[in-house]
Amino acid sequence: MTQTVVASETRTAIIGFDQPFCVIGERINPTGRKKLAAEMLAGNFETVKADALAQVAAGATMLDVNAGVTSIDPNESEPPLLAATVELVQSLVDVPLCIDSSVPAALAAGLAVCKGRPLVNSVTGEEDRLEIVLPLCKKYDVPVIAISNDETGISEDPDVRFAVAKKIVEHAMDYGIKPHDIVVDPLVMPIGAMGTAGLQVFALVRRLREELKVNTSCGASNVSFGIPHRHGINAAFLPMAIASGMTSAIMNPCRPAEMEAVHAANVLMGTDPNCQTWISKYRDHVPGNAAAPTADAGGGGRRRGGRGARLAKA
Amino acid sequence: MTQTVVASETRTAIIGFDQPFCVIGERINPTGRKKLAAEMLAGNFETVKADALAQVAAGATMLDVNAGVTSIDPNESEPPLLAATVELVQSLVDVPLCIDSSVPAALAAGLAVCKGRPLVNSVTGEEDRLEIVLPLCKKYDVPVIAISNDETGISEDPDVRFAVAKKIVEHAMDYGIKPHDIVVDPLVMPIGAMGTAGLQVFALVRRLREELKVNTSCGASNVSFGIPHRHGINAAFLPMAIASGMTSAIMNPCRPAEMEAVHAANVLMGTDPNCQTWISKYRDHVPGNAAAPTADAGGGGRRRGGRGARLAKA
Repeated sequence: MTQTVVASETRTAIIGFDQPFCVIGERINPTGRKKLAAEMLAGNFETVKADALAQVAAGATMLDVNAGVTSIDPNESEPPLLAATVELVQSLVDVPLCIDSSVPAALAAGLAVCKGRPLVNSVTGEEDRLEIVLPLCKKYDVPVIAISNDETGISEDPDVRFAVAKKIVEHAMDYGIKPHDIVVDPLVMPIGAMGTAGLQVFALVRRLREELKVNTSCGASNVSFGIPHRHGINAAFLPMAIASGMTSAIMNPCRPAEMEAVHAANVLMGTDPNCQTWISKYRDHVPGNAAAPTADAGGGGRRRGGRGARLAKA
Repeated sequence: MTQTVVASETRTAIIGFDQPFCVIGERINPTGRKKLAAEMLAGNFETVKADALAQVAAGATMLDVNAGVTSIDPNESEPPLLAATVELVQSLVDVPLCIDSSVPAALAAGLAVCKGRPLVNSVTGEEDRLEIVLPLCKKYDVPVIAISNDETGISEDPDVRFAVAKKIVEHAMDYGIKPHDIVVDPLVMPIGAMGTAGLQVFALVRRLREELKVNTSCGASNVSFGIPHRHGINAAFLPMAIASGMTSAIMNPCRPAEMEAVHAANVLMGTDPNCQTWISKYRDHVPGNAAAPTADAGGGGRRRGGRGARLAKA
C-alpha cells in the first residue's frame, strides 16, 4: 500500500490509498494575490499568519508555502523570502509543509530551514528541472510533487501526460527516490475549456495508481475556472477524483462546500472509521441550502421495497 | 455504447454511459409514508399530484410510481391502485415512468395502462420472480431494474452480488431481453453499518459496466441511513457513483444539494456540453453555505504556478 510520509517537527501525516484525503492548504501563495505579494515584499506577514492559522483551523492536513512575489530577479528575492516564510509558518502551526516554488534556489533555501519532512512542490518532466530538483529531494530525503508536463508543454493527450509521469518516476528511481515519494499531479484542465477534462483526470488518476502505484495530487479548483458557482463544481469534482483514486489536493480548506465534500468522501471511501470525524463535525448540522424537511422527512431514511430487512450473510 | 430507452407518450429519455445522469424521482411511494398511504387508500391523490409536479419541476428525468399501501391482501388492492396512479401521473406530467411494485400482478396492471416505454422496478434473482417478471417485460418490451439479491438474501460479498446480477442478465437473454434493457441495482448498504459499503458499490458499478455492459441504478439515500447531515453524504456519494460508472438513481430530486451534485457530475463527465445546463441553473447563484468571498476571491481561479499558460497541443 503506497504511503508518502510527510512531517513537521512534531506531527506526521501520511498520503496514501488507505488514508483520509490529504488536504494541502493553498492560501499562502502570492501568485495572483497582488496585495499579499506587496505585503510579503514589504516584510509584512500578517496575511500569511492569518492564512496559516485559518487553514489549519479549517482542517488542512498540510500547508503549501509559496513566496513567488513578482520581482526583477526571483533567483535573488525568492530564496530568502521563502525560507523566512517557511520559518514563520512553522513557528505558528505544526502541520507538515509543502515547499512550493518554480525557482530551484528557493526550493533549496526552503528545504534548508524546514523542520521535519516537507513535500516539494514541484518538479516537471523538463530535463533541466529533473536534474536540479531530484538531487535536492534526494539530499533532503523528501517526497516531491511531479507535474506531468515537459518541454513540449501540457499535452491534451492523457497518454502523453501518463508517459511524462512515468518518465519522472523512472528518473527519480535513478536518483534513489522511491515511487512512494513521488506524488503525481496529472494536471487538471478547466472543464469550461475542455469538456473531457474531468474524464481525463479520473482515468489518469486510476492509471497512475494501478500502473505506477503512486499517490496523486492536483490543483483542484482549476477544473471550475471561468464557470459560475464554481464551488458547486469543485465540491463534486473532489469526491469524483477521490473515488477514482486521488489521494491529495492543493485546495482552499476554508471553503466549507469543498471541505464537506472531502469529509463525506472519506466516509464513503472507508477512511473515516465509524464516521467519527463526520459525526463530530456535522452532528448538529442545521440544513442550509437543503430543502426544508417535509412532514415525513424521516421517510428519506427508509430502504426501498423493504430490501434492508432481507440483509443476510453470503 | 449501452443505451436503455424509456419513454412516455410524448417524451423519450435514454439511460446510458454517454448520457446525463438519469434522476428517477422516488417520492410517489407510500412505503414508510403513512399519511400518503392512508390518502391513497382513501382515493385521495392530492399528495401524489403535488409530488409528481414538484419532482418534474425539480428536474427528474423519470418518476417512480409505487402504490404499495399496506393492506390485508396486496394482490387484491395494489393492482388497481397502481394502475390508477400511473394513469393519474401520466395525465399530469410527460416524463417516462418507472413502475414499481413487489407484487407481479400490480406490475402487470401498471404496464397494461402505462403509455410509452416505462421501466419496471424490479426483478430480483429469485427464481420465482424471474419466471414471472421477465416474461412480463418481454410481453410489453420494456426494460427492468434487476436487484442483485436472491433467495439467500442480500449478500455482503460483492462477488456474490455480481454473480446474481450476471445470472439475471443471462436469464433475461433466455427470454429475448437484451442486456441494454437490464438496469442493475448493485444494492447500496448504509455506510454507517458497513464501512466498506461505498467501496463495494463503486467497484461493483465499474465491474457491471465493464464486464456486463449494463446500466446501473440504486436507491441513493440508503447509503446515508442513520447518520447526521445525510444530504452531505448523499451529495458526495452521487458524484462518486457517477465517476465509477453509475448511470441512474432513484432519489429525491427536490433536494437541492443532491441535484446540484448530479448537475456538477454531468459537467465533469462531459454529458452537459459546454456546461449549458449548469450555467442556465447556476448563473445567478448566490453563495449559501460557501465562505464569503475574500478580497481576492478571483484568485481561486488562477492556475497554480502559471501552468495554464503552458497549455500546448500534444
